Amino acid sequence: MNRIEKVAPVTRTEASISAKLAGVGVAAVSIADQFFSPRMAVNRDVSLHSQYDECERTGRLDNFRIAIGEKQGTIRHLAPDSDVYKWMEAAAWSLGTHPDPALEAKLDTVIDLVRRTQDASGYLCTAYPADKAAERYTNLVRSHELYCGGHLIQAAIAHHRTTGKRTFLDVAVRWADHVCDTFNEAHPDTDGHPEVEMALVELFRETGERRYLEQCEFFINVRGTQVTGGQHQQKHAPVRDQKTAVGHAVRQFYLCSGVADLYAETGESALLEALQSQWSDLIDRKIHVTGGAGIFRKGEGLGEPYELPNRTAYDETCAAIALAGWAWRMLQITGESRFADQMEQSLYNGALSGVGLAGDTYFYTNMLEHDGGRAIDGDDRGACVRTRSHWDHVACCPPNIARTLASLGGYVYGTAGNNALFVHLYVAGMLEIDLVGQTLRIEQRHGYPWDGQIELLINPAKPGVSFDLNLRIPAWAKGTSVSVNGQTPQAIRAGTYLTLSRSWSPRDRITLDLPMPIRRLLAHRRVSDNAGCVAAARGPLIYCLEQADHDQRDIYELILPDEAVLLPRRMDGPLGHAVFLTATAQRRAVGDALYSEMTATMSKNAEPAELTLIPYCLWANRSPGAMRVWIPRL
Amino acid sequence: MNRIEKVAPVTRTEASISAKLAGVGVAAVSIADQFFSPRMAVNRDVSLHSQYDECERTGRLDNFRIAIGEKQGTIRHLAPDSDVYKWMEAAAWSLGTHPDPALEAKLDTVIDLVRRTQDASGYLCTAYPADKAAERYTNLVRSHELYCGGHLIQAAIAHHRTTGKRTFLDVAVRWADHVCDTFNEAHPDTDGHPEVEMALVELFRETGERRYLEQCEFFINVRGTQVTGGQHQQKHAPVRDQKTAVGHAVRQFYLCSGVADLYAETGESALLEALQSQWSDLIDRKIHVTGGAGIFRKGEGLGEPYELPNRTAYDETCAAIALAGWAWRMLQITGESRFADQMEQSLYNGALSGVGLAGDTYFYTNMLEHDGGRAIDGDDRGACVRTRSHWDHVACCPPNIARTLASLGGYVYGTAGNNALFVHLYVAGMLEIDLVGQTLRIEQRHGYPWDGQIELLINPAKPGVSFDLNLRIPAWAKGTSVSVNGQTPQAIRAGTYLTLSRSWSPRDRITLDLPMPIRRLLAHRRVSDNAGCVAAARGPLIYCLEQADHDQRDIYELILPDEAVLLPRRMDGPLGHAVFLTATAQRRAVGDALYSEMTATMSKNAEPAELTLIPYCLWANRSPGAMRVWIPRL
Repeated sequence: MNRIEKVAPVTRTEASISAKLAGVGVAAVSIADQFFSPRMAVNRDVSLHSQYDECERTGRLDNFRIAIGEKQGTIRHLAPDSDVYKWMEAAAWSLGTHPDPALEAKLDTVIDLVRRTQDASGYLCTAYPADKAAERYTNLVRSHELYCGGHLIQAAIAHHRTTGKRTFLDVAVRWADHVCDTFNEAHPDTDGHPEVEMALVELFRETGERRYLEQCEFFINVRGTQVTGGQHQQKHAPVRDQKTAVGHAVRQFYLCSGVADLYAETGESALLEALQSQWSDLIDRKIHVTGGAGIFRKGEGLGEPYELPNRTAYDETCAAIALAGWAWRMLQITGESRFADQMEQSLYNGALSGVGLAGDTYFYTNMLEHDGGRAIDGDDRGACVRTRSHWDHVACCPPNIARTLASLGGYVYGTAGNNALFVHLYVAGMLEIDLVGQTLRIEQRHGYPWDGQIELLINPAKPGVSFDLNLRIPAWAKGTSVSVNGQTPQAIRAGTYLTLSRSWSPRDRITLDLPMPIRRLLAHRRVSDNAGCVAAARGPLIYCLEQADHDQRDIYELILPDEAVLLPRRMDGPLGHAVFLTATAQRRAVGDALYSEMTATMSKNAEPAELTLIPYCLWANRSPGAMRVWIPRL
Repeated sequence: MNRIEKVAPVTRTEASISAKLAGVGVAAVSIADQFFSPRMAVNRDVSLHSQYDECERTGRLDNFRIAIGEKQGTIRHLAPDSDVYKWMEAAAWSLGTHPDPALEAKLDTVIDLVRRTQDASGYLCTAYPADKAAERYTNLVRSHELYCGGHLIQAAIAHHRTTGKRTFLDVAVRWADHVCDTFNEAHPDTDGHPEVEMALVELFRETGERRYLEQCEFFINVRGTQVTGGQHQQKHAPVRDQKTAVGHAVRQFYLCSGVADLYAETGESALLEALQSQWSDLIDRKIHVTGGAGIFRKGEGLGEPYELPNRTAYDETCAAIALAGWAWRMLQITGESRFADQMEQSLYNGALSGVGLAGDTYFYTNMLEHDGGRAIDGDDRGACVRTRSHWDHVACCPPNIARTLASLGGYVYGTAGNNALFVHLYVAGMLEIDLVGQTLRIEQRHGYPWDGQIELLINPAKPGVSFDLNLRIPAWAKGTSVSVNGQTPQAIRAGTYLTLSRSWSPRDRITLDLPMPIRRLLAHRRVSDNAGCVAAARGPLIYCLEQADHDQRDIYELILPDEAVLLPRRMDGPLGHAVFLTATAQRRAVGDALYSEMTATMSKNAEPAELTLIPYCLWANRSPGAMRVWIPRL
């Protein structure tokens, strides 16, 4: 097998038998990117610290101290152990690219607290300390005990990979061994919230211990065979019988991630068939154009086919992150660029919108429209707050986006065997990797996604090294051309990986020209919420109309006729460096009646109006106001 | 005061001090109308009988028998006493126009059962029989005890008016006296579901007993001053401080109906101001074009301003009926035709859609779009079943539509003083009324709402009787003209009452020509669910696109460009006699992708397609399939 350090975005992979691709370690990628670097710096400098403080303030760390008697008080749940673990994972990945002794010491202190909280049996969950030991695993549909343990494993693996220390990994291994000893044919149960499955596979990859892989398979086999739980818990049917994407979005995507990881190691075709079927149902019928999914508040669930409301879209930040993770795994096992396209769409839009530019506020939900009024909350139509909050009662999203940004480098590249490198994402910076027996450096230089001119500099240590360089050409990038060392550009097909097979020498230079036209998107006819409306996209970014760019004139008066020309405009301002879209569109002259009769003169009364669109991921960073992604065409 | 029998749609009014208009007794109006007569006949011949059977089958009548020990079993609630009372009211009104000894005997039997169930104290509610007497009125936020009593009063008044018997009225009076003795400053509480307020005012009108009016005022004064209950129970604020239409739609409209009745008797301006403010908020921001309201399932509640989803519209049948009743009362107290317009819109569309043509199936909710797929139910997005059901667990709607149809005659006419008659609705048939000291017969002859040619024949007993005849000219009826006895037609203003002041003689003939153009309606810019879409209306009827008229081709492929001409087409078929609308519209050539890039050739690929629209109130009477009211314009 090859020797490359292969790491999935949040976890390291040994070569998986049935996967086409493998990942590249987070620490192997230095990012110096106009788009992401400022967000990642804020993630390190602000989010990691403020999230730790929130874990303290809200008693999430005290839960551990109370569980072991170091502090008096009442343990608060549901599942906040996982928030701590996700913060730990984020901190651990950050240490891999940005050493920080103070952060490392803080993390070590928390690891020690977690270690001391672990039961002699290996059990670890603050919800059921020693005096409640009899209640352990008695309410798995709701308790999240295995879910928390999954995050424990993922954090411990990140810590092991970036620091080389086994302190945290030993805790995770003890916990995993305890779980393997506990759940079996005699105790055939599993968690209401999938997560432990992918963690166990990764722990197998990290340790080589096959029992963790087998335990994942056991959990997947037992799921949907018990009487407890339904779609919400992904327990409505056996995993191999699931054909559609239903239920709680995050659980659906986490489960499919675990199933994909299992498939990668076993190659069982029934698993892949179930994954492909659910993927198609999701992508063809149940996902927002922002890459968000899970439309409704109650159950945080996926809707009926084509049920994709904008104003009440729930679209939890965690769901976009989870979908990117599932897409990553589908990419690994199939090698098909469409999965990387979806991963990019979810990361750049529905996930990134989850955190404010200042790094200390978060959207739990990511609606596609807000009327600018007061929050609609406290009912089941959505959680349509118009400003991000510092923390939530259920605070899964903040540390989830933090660990995602901290491990972003892991999403960028991939390998196939020992002589093929893949560029999945265009994120500027440097990759240093061992390939074909030598150290290879590849640098991405560009202003993507603001610009489509991608320059890749290939620097093998020695000249004349042959390998395949595979560059993802996004499906939207029609008319892309490529040139190597200034040769005549070659037109290439979009929606695939372009393979450049050659002998590479130092200072070889690839110029990839991704056209960045402004695309007008229409939704399927059955998405009636978007009837008569258009959304704008450029590159991987979905755009939106925000009140802040339109003075005091109501953005609901604006329409974007098909014939109005949208133009890109570079901006530097409160949203940082970005490309806005502008058009001379129209402002409808209409009255205040709720329903009015259409008249022949009505359209003549529309007057020209300037319209500005900003990337969706940047909305709600200025004064609060209305926002919409889908804009009426008339 | 005048001597006319003045009856509100479900209740009789003595002249109210502060009302501009008064009603006309249900029994004074014989209906012979193309549109309504078949529905009313089915209501009598099918609905009244099947609803009684359902009350038996589901134990609603047994609840009474069990409460008095005539039967063993467990009493089932919530609030089904009111379903029985509403059936009784429907039966009573029906007897007023269509004597039916068998029905009357059946009704008398139920009245006797109810009478025997009444406690010696006057208390009456099967939820709290003698052995649970200690729990009475301890949970008024939820118990519906006063709500049920309100329906008891309304049914008893109907029975008294149409049969002249006091048997049922005596029960209601005993109950009302008990309530007056029970609730006062020492026991300042009221029901979570308004209803009793309007019933008490009507009982005051029926009996002349002022204490019932005062008790209504007490309940209205105490509402919103207790700590229990919120918007859902209309207890979030004192009645006079309520400025917006919020909370549970039926409760909001029933409360406002009671407040309007109180205003009619007291003239307190603060009440009228609160009513006008809530009315405007509803009509300008929170009502569907079908005259339905209360958009969401959880709480059956009114939404945020302009939050008017189609697919998940809840729009309970009872809410449309309740709104018609509130509109009726606003019409009485103001004399303004806009209230009659709204009453007509809700009755002809969102209320009538609640019952199937066969008279034994009912929509509890009335969505404005259905994708034709399986029911979306069991969650909080709506109760979007695609077929009407025979009965519901909560079965308020079936007998509510039955009592409305049975008392329809009461909505048609009105009077002001002793020398002004009002025609509110164009429903063909005969009115016989005492006016200006003589018996006057007025006949409406027309095919409204299919035709706009309205003929009114005036037949005073003696020639040369002077009075004002006021004809409602709907706001949509621009270009209406009127002619008396074949004189040159006069153009008249829409959205007002046309007053014809003259001396009338037998065989005077008025010809009112209401133009019935097909109107294309657009929604306010903030109703983003209707962006880029149009709805069609003709006369008072809102139209919809239904799959049954479009073979196997998906109606979601159809668009209705602004330039496509809609034409009326008379049809006789499974939907009875009706006017459909047809157009050569377009079928979009689009693929199956959830999101696709708009291209220049896309619009050229649209092909001509025949499109048929049917009245919304008639949908779901053929094979189940998709339906939509709002149709994309491109």
